[in-house]
Amino acid sequence: MTKTAGCCQGCLHYVFDYETPKTLVIPSIRVGFVFRFTQFLVVLYVVGYVCVVQKAYQETDSVLSTVTTKVKGFAFTNTSDADPRFWDVADYVVPPQGGDSFFVLTNMVVTPQQTQSRCPEVGDNNSQQLLIHIHSGILTGLCENYSTTVKTCEVISWCPLEIDTKLPEHALLAAAENFTVLIKNSITYPKFNVHRRNILPHINSSYLKRCEFNRTTDPDCPIFRLKHIVSEAGEEFQDMAVKGGILGIIIDWSCDLDWWARKCNPQYSFRRLDNKNPANNVAPGFNFRFAKYYKTPDGEETRTLIKAYGIRFDVVVHGTAGKFGIVPTVVNLGAALTFLSLVPVVADWVMLTCMGKRDLYKKHKITHLNEVADTETVSDKLNVFTRDYQGLIFSIFPFSSLP
Amino acid sequence: MTKTAGCCQGCLHYVFDYETPKTLVIPSIRVGFVFRFTQFLVVLYVVGYVCVVQKAYQETDSVLSTVTTKVKGFAFTNTSDADPRFWDVADYVVPPQGGDSFFVLTNMVVTPQQTQSRCPEVGDNNSQQLLIHIHSGILTGLCENYSTTVKTCEVISWCPLEIDTKLPEHALLAAAENFTVLIKNSITYPKFNVHRRNILPHINSSYLKRCEFNRTTDPDCPIFRLKHIVSEAGEEFQDMAVKGGILGIIIDWSCDLDWWARKCNPQYSFRRLDNKNPANNVAPGFNFRFAKYYKTPDGEETRTLIKAYGIRFDVVVHGTAGKFGIVPTVVNLGAALTFLSLVPVVADWVMLTCMGKRDLYKKHKITHLNEVADTETVSDKLNVFTRDYQGLIFSIFPFSSLP
Amino acid sequence: MTKTAGCCQGCLHYVFDYETPKTLVIPSIRVGFVFRFTQFLVVLYVVGYVCVVQKAYQETDSVLSTVTTKVKGFAFTNTSDADPRFWDVADYVVPPQGGDSFFVLTNMVVTPQQTQSRCPEVGDNNSQQLLIHIHSGILTGLCENYSTTVKTCEVISWCPLEIDTKLPEHALLAAAENFTVLIKNSITYPKFNVHRRNILPHINSSYLKRCEFNRTTDPDCPIFRLKHIVSEAGEEFQDMAVKGGILGIIIDWSCDLDWWARKCNPQYSFRRLDNKNPANNVAPGFNFRFAKYYKTPDGEETRTLIKAYGIRFDVVVHGTAGKFGIVPTVVNLGAALTFLSLVPVVADWVMLTCMGKRDLYKKHKITHLNEVADTETVSDKLNVFTRDYQGLIFSIFPFSSLP
Repeated sequence: MTKTAGCCQGCLHYVFDYETPKTLVIPSIRVGFVFRFTQFLVVLYVVGYVCVVQKAYQETDSVLSTVTTKVKGFAFTNTSDADPRFWDVADYVVPPQGGDSFFVLTNMVVTPQQTQSRCPEVGDNNSQQLLIHIHSGILTGLCENYSTTVKTCEVISWCPLEIDTKLPEHALLAAAENFTVLIKNSITYPKFNVHRRNILPHINSSYLKRCEFNRTTDPDCPIFRLKHIVSEAGEEFQDMAVKGGILGIIIDWSCDLDWWARKCNPQYSFRRLDNKNPANNVAPGFNFRFAKYYKTPDGEETRTLIKAYGIRFDVVVHGTAGKFGIVPTVVNLGAALTFLSLVPVVADWVMLTCMGKRDLYKKHKITHLNEVADTETVSDKLNVFTRDYQGLIFSIFPFSSLP
Repeated sequence: MTKTAGCCQGCLHYVFDYETPKTLVIPSIRVGFVFRFTQFLVVLYVVGYVCVVQKAYQETDSVLSTVTTKVKGFAFTNTSDADPRFWDVADYVVPPQGGDSFFVLTNMVVTPQQTQSRCPEVGDNNSQQLLIHIHSGILTGLCENYSTTVKTCEVISWCPLEIDTKLPEHALLAAAENFTVLIKNSITYPKFNVHRRNILPHINSSYLKRCEFNRTTDPDCPIFRLKHIVSEAGEEFQDMAVKGGILGIIIDWSCDLDWWARKCNPQYSFRRLDNKNPANNVAPGFNFRFAKYYKTPDGEETRTLIKAYGIRFDVVVHGTAGKFGIVPTVVNLGAALTFLSLVPVVADWVMLTCMGKRDLYKKHKITHLNEVADTETVSDKLNVFTRDYQGLIFSIFPFSSLP
Repeated sequence: MTKTAGCCQGCLHYVFDYETPKTLVIPSIRVGFVFRFTQFLVVLYVVGYVCVVQKAYQETDSVLSTVTTKVKGFAFTNTSDADPRFWDVADYVVPPQGGDSFFVLTNMVVTPQQTQSRCPEVGDNNSQQLLIHIHSGILTGLCENYSTTVKTCEVISWCPLEIDTKLPEHALLAAAENFTVLIKNSITYPKFNVHRRNILPHINSSYLKRCEFNRTTDPDCPIFRLKHIVSEAGEEFQDMAVKGGILGIIIDWSCDLDWWARKCNPQYSFRRLDNKNPANNVAPGFNFRFAKYYKTPDGEETRTLIKAYGIRFDVVVHGTAGKFGIVPTVVNLGAALTFLSLVPVVADWVMLTCMGKRDLYKKHKITHLNEVADTETVSDKLNVFTRDYQGLIFSIFPFSSLP
């Protein structure tokens, strides 16, 4: 044997000697039962809660979504204060492009034939006071009688001014409740390279031409009657149509992509997204102003101002896909195993504290070094402790040496 | 020694006595090899898979994005059934605002000079049947001859009615394939306070004025030719232009923000987002109706209804940024260490089951309490067990006492 | 005792015998202190960093948001090169619908009375060169004198052509800085079924009618003056108004939903999202072209082309809600416990390496099997090793046997 071999032997010892704890087997059914029962509880948590309920072994990804919407339906209005008029999609859907948010006009205040000119501000005959219309226009400084009872001031503005207290009490396009909307939604989970659309594979074209969404009879039909949407959200269409509002069409694409589950279908739900009647509110409902611009034969610009009230439908797509992943599995399994490694601590505590033979167990399990060969007495230890850590203790408990 | 000192000693024992397992060193190279090899596998998994592949030591954040788009190009149409016409951006991009979704008009059915009036529904001369146009208008109750062969009924509507079977077979704005779009995209990872834009710092202005995106030669140029986008998505522009469609411009901002990596550049990809030719479909392609409103000199409102077919380009920005974080590092390291603590279990099992000297190892490793000092016999234990847990066992295995 | 009982005994032994490590108590205050101090550091990390700072015991969810915006204000322009004009919301807000992105027009180049016709391209009198206007129109092949010094070619286009160098140096709608915008934002955390809106419950309607956002005095008011937004983003409104830009109104809804925290209020911040003056840029600022279409009395279509410069305000809502969750708690606690289980490794190393009595400790803690009963000598082991693993070693270190 050369010297090199001797060195090598040392290395081998260091690397390949296997150090294992000495153990004591306690043949006590009670301790064993405590041990196994605690183990069982941990395993139950891991299998039952972590794996089955929370699916914590899955990696997750967030949805990317594309939505197109197409509203169908027409209405005919014939009220006393306006000409009879036929309305189709190009008239009442704003913006017309059919993205994930579309507005259906249901009520309006129309101010036609506005031109850039001068006119008196609008007064309120009932209260005999000038309505403070800070949005009316630029004051010319001239004030005059608006009516026999109210005096208002002249402004430069688009004249005549809008009188938005004229809003009809019943929605003008009450018929809008029977309009339908087709929602086409394609989604992607980029991490898992999964693509889905809300027109499910088992649905055929002839069904799509006649179906209408209904949670119980037609849960997969992507065509929704507006009245149905609003009533599923717990609202009354005709009430909401007067002042407008925002209605969420929420599509939940929560998916379980593991091969043994393969659940990936959209779930529709509906919720009003603005507050109906809160104590504190500004500008309740939903409205906006837009104008159609015309030119008169002599080149002057006129416009028709429309204060449009209606329901904005927001298609909100959300969801998380889960699929078995090694990292989350290992992390959760690791955490569970850690808790399994706590089980002996519990069992040891029970064994050494609650059992009748605890002294016997303790005697065989635990060896006190001083019982065997320690020459350091307790008072020595205390002295060493006092010497070494006095400064430390004093710095932590500065008043501990006070009388 | 006072009583206080005695108590203090007890405390010290409790707090500062160190309890460590007694161990047995097994000088077996085989067991040692099993032990080290299993350890090596765990370390390999942690370093190789968790750290290098999955980068599980990183905290993550989702991207916030702002997009502006600007289309350039013009077209000239000169077909038999319409006046020659020049088209620029203001004509064919709807909506014009240049957000993350823009529509390029490529084909259309124009119905000019519509007025609120009465007209017969549109019949189909070929099939000699009334086309059921539920979107035509309000029936007046009067029916008349639409042509010599077909009789249709009169409606109140915007007249004349649209005949949308007139859609040109070749896209009207075929020249749209040569339009270009400039996409400006600024992103933020709020958690890491990182801001980036898709015009990279090393790109200069003169390059930006003449470049055009090409995956191999100009991968960083933010100007895209529409035809190129569509062909990268695996589609034919002229086919898609006839009936319209939705095309996703997907910008992937996956970033590794650790100082040793510093990768944070956009990756462009293109994918058709609607289904081209599925078996089940409603309203294939992409189109919507909008109107331009005019007033005749005598104040009557007319409109030009346009059923616009075209390609909607959706700029979809997604991505996740990762950066070293203490919590995920500790969690993943903890899980790995737990698996390391399982290695002795494996080595013990090999040692006590497969080794030739397993009995020798077992004798020195494991002490059976009853061998030493236990006076409780096995039958005693069974009796105790039976006494204590009979009820439990019976409730779990109710038929275990059946003959 | 029957044979069955004997088997059952075996089972009971297997299942209910409890195996616990034999331990050695070291009454050394130094080792004990190292042990306790390392334990304390791990606990400090877990409680202090993981729980208090990172709140790693929480499940998280991402926000779903709905935004409506409503701009108020009017302006009056009276410049030398255009008629005096009054501007209200319907004129300067594009698109008018009040979604999460709205554009306020501040400057523009107007080209009125465009018709489909022929006209010469625009020349530059100063440089006496033809401006290369690749977006002007279709060349007819005819070239003529644009002015006395510049010769340009005739195009078919919307004529007259836009001369976009005419952009006013001072923003036309300078008054836009005093416009206000009301932002209504409703959010949902779907996983926790939590709904909030940015009009907080303690705010009353009369306050909402007169308040204006100010970070110190009115931090909860949802009405923002445009000038204030821009100056909080570190920009000058009048500078930004000339060429336009994009301004982010960022609403951070980070929420702590645990019952002992209950923090869930919006935080507003403002940031310019486009780059102001980078070295490399194309089309700086923000502008887009749109047209208003008219018909002359004889039926010819004319349009007014507007190149609109202005500020696009993007309301960006982000946030993460956290709430106590069992799985993340267990995972983080598990990881921490794993590190606690490393503490004895540290203490053992200190005990067996740095302590004066290390040989005494080692003697009592570690038993070497060969000291007791092993008949296998070191050289035997080496032989066995050489025999068994020679191939392996050679395959790993192929040159180890070279001289």
